[in-house]
Amino acid sequence: MKRLLITGAAGGLGSVLRSKLAYLADTLRLSDIADLGKAGPNEELMPCNLSDKAAVEALVKGCDGIVHLGGRSIEDSWNVISSANIDGVFNLYEAARKQGCNRIVFASSNHAIGYYPQNERLDSDVYPRPDSLYGVSKVFGEALANMYHDKFGIETAIVRIGSCLPEPSDHRQLSTWLSQDDFVRLIERAFATSKLGCPVIYGASDNDAGWWDNSKVGYLGWKPQDNSEDYRPTVDANNARPAPDTPEVRFQGGIFTAEGIHED
Amino acid sequence: MKRLLITGAAGGLGSVLRSKLAYLADTLRLSDIADLGKAGPNEELMPCNLSDKAAVEALVKGCDGIVHLGGRSIEDSWNVISSANIDGVFNLYEAARKQGCNRIVFASSNHAIGYYPQNERLDSDVYPRPDSLYGVSKVFGEALANMYHDKFGIETAIVRIGSCLPEPSDHRQLSTWLSQDDFVRLIERAFATSKLGCPVIYGASDNDAGWWDNSKVGYLGWKPQDNSEDYRPTVDANNARPAPDTPEVRFQGGIFTAEGIHED
Amino acid sequence: MKRLLITGAAGGLGSVLRSKLAYLADTLRLSDIADLGKAGPNEELMPCNLSDKAAVEALVKGCDGIVHLGGRSIEDSWNVISSANIDGVFNLYEAARKQGCNRIVFASSNHAIGYYPQNERLDSDVYPRPDSLYGVSKVFGEALANMYHDKFGIETAIVRIGSCLPEPSDHRQLSTWLSQDDFVRLIERAFATSKLGCPVIYGASDNDAGWWDNSKVGYLGWKPQDNSEDYRPTVDANNARPAPDTPEVRFQGGIFTAEGIHED
Amino acid sequence: MKRLLITGAAGGLGSVLRSKLAYLADTLRLSDIADLGKAGPNEELMPCNLSDKAAVEALVKGCDGIVHLGGRSIEDSWNVISSANIDGVFNLYEAARKQGCNRIVFASSNHAIGYYPQNERLDSDVYPRPDSLYGVSKVFGEALANMYHDKFGIETAIVRIGSCLPEPSDHRQLSTWLSQDDFVRLIERAFATSKLGCPVIYGASDNDAGWWDNSKVGYLGWKPQDNSEDYRPTVDANNARPAPDTPEVRFQGGIFTAEGIHED
Amino acid sequence: MKRLLITGAAGGLGSVLRSKLAYLADTLRLSDIADLGKAGPNEELMPCNLSDKAAVEALVKGCDGIVHLGGRSIEDSWNVISSANIDGVFNLYEAARKQGCNRIVFASSNHAIGYYPQNERLDSDVYPRPDSLYGVSKVFGEALANMYHDKFGIETAIVRIGSCLPEPSDHRQLSTWLSQDDFVRLIERAFATSKLGCPVIYGASDNDAGWWDNSKVGYLGWKPQDNSEDYRPTVDANNARPAPDTPEVRFQGGIFTAEGIHED
Amino acid sequence: MKRLLITGAAGGLGSVLRSKLAYLADTLRLSDIADLGKAGPNEELMPCNLSDKAAVEALVKGCDGIVHLGGRSIEDSWNVISSANIDGVFNLYEAARKQGCNRIVFASSNHAIGYYPQNERLDSDVYPRPDSLYGVSKVFGEALANMYHDKFGIETAIVRIGSCLPEPSDHRQLSTWLSQDDFVRLIERAFATSKLGCPVIYGASDNDAGWWDNSKVGYLGWKPQDNSEDYRPTVDANNARPAPDTPEVRFQGGIFTAEGIHED
Repeated sequence: MKRLLITGAAGGLGSVLRSKLAYLADTLRLSDIADLGKAGPNEELMPCNLSDKAAVEALVKGCDGIVHLGGRSIEDSWNVISSANIDGVFNLYEAARKQGCNRIVFASSNHAIGYYPQNERLDSDVYPRPDSLYGVSKVFGEALANMYHDKFGIETAIVRIGSCLPEPSDHRQLSTWLSQDDFVRLIERAFATSKLGCPVIYGASDNDAGWWDNSKVGYLGWKPQDNSEDYRPTVDANNARPAPDTPEVRFQGGIFTAEGIHED
Repeated sequence: MKRLLITGAAGGLGSVLRSKLAYLADTLRLSDIADLGKAGPNEELMPCNLSDKAAVEALVKGCDGIVHLGGRSIEDSWNVISSANIDGVFNLYEAARKQGCNRIVFASSNHAIGYYPQNERLDSDVYPRPDSLYGVSKVFGEALANMYHDKFGIETAIVRIGSCLPEPSDHRQLSTWLSQDDFVRLIERAFATSKLGCPVIYGASDNDAGWWDNSKVGYLGWKPQDNSEDYRPTVDANNARPAPDTPEVRFQGGIFTAEGIHED
Repeated sequence: MKRLLITGAAGGLGSVLRSKLAYLADTLRLSDIADLGKAGPNEELMPCNLSDKAAVEALVKGCDGIVHLGGRSIEDSWNVISSANIDGVFNLYEAARKQGCNRIVFASSNHAIGYYPQNERLDSDVYPRPDSLYGVSKVFGEALANMYHDKFGIETAIVRIGSCLPEPSDHRQLSTWLSQDDFVRLIERAFATSKLGCPVIYGASDNDAGWWDNSKVGYLGWKPQDNSEDYRPTVDANNARPAPDTPEVRFQGGIFTAEGIHED
Repeated sequence: MKRLLITGAAGGLGSVLRSKLAYLADTLRLSDIADLGKAGPNEELMPCNLSDKAAVEALVKGCDGIVHLGGRSIEDSWNVISSANIDGVFNLYEAARKQGCNRIVFASSNHAIGYYPQNERLDSDVYPRPDSLYGVSKVFGEALANMYHDKFGIETAIVRIGSCLPEPSDHRQLSTWLSQDDFVRLIERAFATSKLGCPVIYGASDNDAGWWDNSKVGYLGWKPQDNSEDYRPTVDANNARPAPDTPEVRFQGGIFTAEGIHED
Repeated sequence: MKRLLITGAAGGLGSVLRSKLAYLADTLRLSDIADLGKAGPNEELMPCNLSDKAAVEALVKGCDGIVHLGGRSIEDSWNVISSANIDGVFNLYEAARKQGCNRIVFASSNHAIGYYPQNERLDSDVYPRPDSLYGVSKVFGEALANMYHDKFGIETAIVRIGSCLPEPSDHRQLSTWLSQDDFVRLIERAFATSKLGCPVIYGASDNDAGWWDNSKVGYLGWKPQDNSEDYRPTVDANNARPAPDTPEVRFQGGIFTAEGIHED
Repeated sequence: MKRLLITGAAGGLGSVLRSKLAYLADTLRLSDIADLGKAGPNEELMPCNLSDKAAVEALVKGCDGIVHLGGRSIEDSWNVISSANIDGVFNLYEAARKQGCNRIVFASSNHAIGYYPQNERLDSDVYPRPDSLYGVSKVFGEALANMYHDKFGIETAIVRIGSCLPEPSDHRQLSTWLSQDDFVRLIERAFATSKLGCPVIYGASDNDAGWWDNSKVGYLGWKPQDNSEDYRPTVDANNARPAPDTPEVRFQGGIFTAEGIHED
C-alpha cells in the first residue's frame, strides 16, 4: 500500500500497532484526538475528531486502507459513545466512499456479543447480543460496514477483538486474549487477500480455552500462533479463582454486563 | 393494561392502529411530532419529539406498555435518521428503564435484513444485512432492545415489519405484506403472553409467497390469518412483471437497495 | 391386530383410550395395578404389577402390540419411580423381546425435556433435559426403547405427551395440550404404518401456541386436528395471567421444575 | 408466453399437461419420439429424438420456455438412459443457450434421492443419493441445469417429481403423490415468477404423510392444494400392508432400489 | 480441594488415577466394593457399596469433589446394572445434594451412543443411542446429572470415555483411545474451571482417526496431547484387519452391539 | 493387496503415483490411453480406452482395488468429456461389479463444486455446483459411485482433488493445493480402513488458507501433513495479486468458471 491510515493511533493498542504495521505501507497516516508524539520515518500525523465529518473526509483522502481503532473503547455515557462510535463511524465510511478507499479493518469487539454465555461456542453468523452501550455501538458499526459493502463494495474485516494486550492478566482473558503479533498477522492478511468481502472475524489467539469459531473465514489464511495457556500459571498466581456466579465467568463480555447506564 | 403508549400515532400505520388497539388498554396515550387531530374517548394526546430526552421520559411515565412506531420509516439523510431512529430509540429505552415500563413492541423493519436475496429463507437468528441508513438504524434499535432485555429485563417484541398496508400493491409485497389485522393480533399476543423475552418476529401475513420463518416464536401463539395471494390478480393487473435483474426482485429490501446516501 | 395390550388402563388417560381404541384390535387386553372395572365386549382384564417380571411376561404373551401408559405419571419418590418406571419398563421390553411383540407406543413425557425454556423450539433430536425423577425415568425408557430397536428390531413410537386432557385448563396447557382424539389418531398411525422405526414424537395437538416441531416424523402421516386456541377465552377467564418469572412460564415442564426430591 | 415447448408430450404425464397448460402460452410446441396424435388449436407438433443435437436445436428455436418431460422415465439399460437422459439433456441445454431460451422446468425425479430412508426428511440441499441408472441420469441433469444457470443465466425449476398420477395407488404413493393440478400450479408459478434462479423443488402434493421439505422455495408462492390422505381408504382396500423390510417401505425410491443393472 | 472422593478406586482405571490425581486435593478419599490395598499418604480408604444409600451419604460427607468411576463398567445382567449404575448413581447425587458437594466428574461411556455408525461425527448434543443395558444405565446417569444441575446447581463433567487404557490394542481403539494422562488433564480442568455447567465431553485423545467433536466444550481449555496413531504399527501387527461387516467396524460401541441381554 | 489398478497412469499425477504407491500391492496394474513407458518391477502395463466396455472389464479383472485417475482432467468438448468421464466411469463401475472389485479411489474434482464462492466453507454434504462440463461429469461419477455403494456395496473414496502438484504456483492454489505425499497418505488410508463406505473427501493439504471441511471423514484417520503456506513467498514473487472481481478470486473453481462450452 501507498498510504495506510490508522485511527486511534495514540491509544494503547494503536501505539503498539504503529510500529508493528509500518512495513505494510510506504506511509502510515496516524490519527487520534490525543497527542501522537513525534512522527517517525514514513509517518504522517493528522489529529482528528472523528465526529467532525469534514475533518474525517480530509483524513481519509489519499489512503489505500484504514485500520480503524479510533473511538471510545470502553463503556461510557450515550453522548460520548454516540459521538465517537456512531457519528464517528458513519463519518469514516462516508469518507471512504467519497474518497474511494475500499478496504478497512474495523475494530469491533467481543462486547457486540457479550451476553452470550461463556459455555456457548459462537461462529461468525450469530445474532448480536451486546452487553453495553459500547457493545451496541459496535453492532451499529458492523451493520454499517455490511451495508457499505453490499451497496458500495467497500470491503471490511470486522474484527471482534477479545483482549489485545501484551499478555492475559485474568482468567477470562485466557479465553479472549489476542496477542499483538496475531493481530498484526490478521491485519496483514486482511490487506493482502485479493477478495476480502465483509467477514466477521473473532480476534483471539489460538487459546486452548477459546470460545470462538473462525472456521468460516479460513479463506483468509490467518492462523493465530500464540496461546494464552502459556500464561495460565501466572494468571493463577495473580488472581483468585472467580466465583461461579459472577459476570466474569458467566458471560463472554465479563464485567461489562454488570455495568449500568452511564449518565452524561 | 391501564395505559398503552403508541408513538408515531399520526403516521399511516399509527392512525390505523389507534382505533384498532383501543381495546387493549383503559387509556391510549398517542404521540407524534405531527398533528394527532382530536383525542377520542380513552385517548390522551402527547406531542413529542423523540430526540428530546426529557420529553420522552415524560411521555413514557405512567405507561404499562409501548407500541413504538415513531421515528423515520423510510430512507433519509444521516441527520434525520440518527436523530429520530438512533437518539430517539435510546431515549425511549432509557425512559422505559427509568419509568419501569417493561414491555415494548418495537417496529423494526425488513430493511434490517434487506440485502438478503429473495430466494433465501430467513429465520429469527440471521445476522443483519441492512439495506440503507434506515435499515442500519433498525439494527441499532434491535441491538439496544436486546441489551435492555439482557441487562434490565425489559421485554421487547422486535417486529421486522414487511409491508403493513391495507393491501399489497406490487409483486414484492405479495411476499412482504402484513395485514393490519394480523399486526393487531400480533401486538395483542405480545402484551398478553406472560413471558415475552426479546424475540425477533417477521411481520408478515400468511402469504403463499412469503420468505420468512417464524417457527422459533411459535410460543407466542400468533398465527397470521391473511394471505396476500388473494390480491395476486389485482397486483398482476396493475403492475408489469418486474425484470429479473432489478432490485425489486433480487433483494428482500427491494428498491431500498438501489438508493444512495441522502445528503443532509 | 388380533390383540392389543393397554397398560395403565385404569388411569385417567387409559380409561378414555380403552373405549376409543377398541376398533384397533379384535381384543383389547387391559392391565393396571388399580381396579379395571368390568370387561366390556372384546376386552380382557389382566391386573398386573409392572415390577413383577414374570407377571409382565405373561401379560405380553399373545399380544401384537402394546400401548404402554402404565407406571407412575407424576413426580414421586425414588422407590416408587424406579419400581414402576424403570424396572417396569425393563420388564415390559424384555417381555416383548421374549414374546415376539414388535410394536409399542411408549408414553414418554414432556418432562423428559422439561428444563428447556418455553421460548425454545424443540425437534425430535434434542438432548434430554428432564425436570424431575419422573422425567429422568422417561429418558431411561426412551433409551431402552432405542436400544431394543437397534439391537432387536422392536419398534416404538416414543410419544412425549404434553397434556392429554379433555381440554386445556391453564395457560401452559395452551401450548402442551394433546386432545384425546389426536392421541388416538397418532396411536392408529403408529400401528398402521409399515415401518415405524423408533421415532420421538411430541404429543401435542395443532396448537397455535405450540413449542414442538414434529416435522421429522412426517412420514407417519399424523396430522393433529385440534387446537387449544379454541379454549383460550375459557383459560383466560379461569386463570390469572402467570407472573413472568414463575416456573409455569419459564420452563416447558412447568411446575415440575419447582418440585424437590420426594423422600421415600 | 408466446411459445412454450413441452417435450415428452406423448407420454402419460405429457398428454395430460398438454391440455392443462394450454393457457400458459399463445402456442404450445409439443414434441416426442412417439406419436403425438393431431394438433389441437394453438398446438404445434414437432417429433424429435432428443439425442439428435441439430434436431433439438431446431426444436427449441423460437420458444420462450420449456417443460422438459422427455427422455426415459423408468430404469433401463445404460445405452437407453445415456442417450435419452444424458445426451438428450445436454442437447436441450445447449439448444436453450444458443437460442436464448432462458427458462426451463426440468422433470427430475425422487429417484435422484431414492436411497434416503423414508423416515428421513429431506430439504432442497441434500447431497444426491440416486437409486438407479435412471436416478443417476437425473443427478446429471440437475448438475447440468445448475452449471447453465451459474455460467449462462438460464433459469431452471428442478422438480423432483414424486408420483404424478391421477391418484395414489399404493402406500408409498401416499407420501410421493403429486396431483396433476398441483403440478400445473407449480409450472405456472415457475414461469410467472420474475426471478426463478435454479431451485430444487420436491414435486409432491400437500400429503399428510409426505417426506419432503420445500420451505426453501417459499418465494415461488407455490402451495400444493391436494392431499393423498383422501385416498388412503382406497389404497388400504386395494393393497396389502407392505412388510417392514421391503424396499417399498425402506427407501424413498421404493422398488427402484431393488432393480439390478439392465443389460443392453 | 481439601478432599476429593474417587469411587471405583480399586478398578483398572481407578487404581491408576489414584496416584495421578493425588496432587489435586489435600486428601484423596478412595472407595470401592473391592479391596483397595493400603492407604498411601494423603489417602483415606472407605469401602462402600454404592447401592447402600446411607453408606453413600457418609462416603460423600466432607468432600469438595467427586470423580465417579464406580459401578459396573461392562455389560451385565439387569440386576447388576440397575443396582450399581442406576440406584448407585441416584444415591451418589442425593448424597452430593444433601452434603453440599457441588462438582462431579461422571464416567459416562461411549456406549451411551454406541449404536451410531463409525462414519458419523458426533458432537455433544446428539440424542443418545445406547448399545447395551450398560449403555442405557449411562444415559440414565447423564439425565440424572443434568436434572441435578438444572434443579440444584450441582455441576458435572459428563465424560463419555472411549477406551482409557495404557495404549490402544485394537483397530477400534485407534479411534476411541483416551490416554490416562489426557484423562487426568481433563479431570484437572473440570475442577479448576470457575463455571463448569453440565457439559458432555467425549473422553478421547487427539487421535487422527477420532470420531468425536468436542468443540462445544472449548471453554474448558482441555486439549488432549496424545494420539493413538503412534500405536498404529503395533495394532496392525497384533490384529488382523476386521471384516467390514462386523460390529467392531460398523458401530461406535463395537462388540457391545453384538451382545444379547444377560440373564440374571 | 495383491493387485492394484491405477488408471490414467501415464498422466502427470499418475506417473508420480506409480512409484509412490508401489508399496501398497504386490502388483500395480497400470493403464492409460497414452504411452506408459516400460514396466518396472511389480508393474503390469495394460493400455486401455475407458470407453471400450469389454476392454475395461478385462482391465479390472483380478484387481483388489482401483485408483481411478483416468479420463479427461480439464474442460473439453461434450464428446470428449462424455466418452472419457461418463461412459468411461460407467464402464469402470460395471467392470468392478462384475469382477467383484469392491474398493475404489475415485478422482473427483473441486470443479464439482467450483461455483461456490471462495469465502464459503464447504463440508462433505453440500449440493454440487459444477463449473464446467468437466465438473458436471465429476458430479455424474460421484452419483454413480454412491449408487453402486448403496445397491451393490462397492466402496469408493470420492476425492475432490484441489490442485495435486509438486507445489502451489498461484494464489488460488494456496487454498487448493494437495501435496502428492498427502494424496498418497489418503489413498493408503482408503485401502487400509476396514469399512470405507462412500465418503466425499476434499483433497487438499493442511493449508492455512484452505476452504474445505473434512471433519465428517475423521474416521479415516487421514491427516494431511503439508501446508501451502510454505510457498506463499514464492507465489507472491511469481504472481501479481489478482484483481478482486476475477474468476480466480471469486469462485472455488477459479478460471474454469470463465470458460465457455467447447464445440466439438
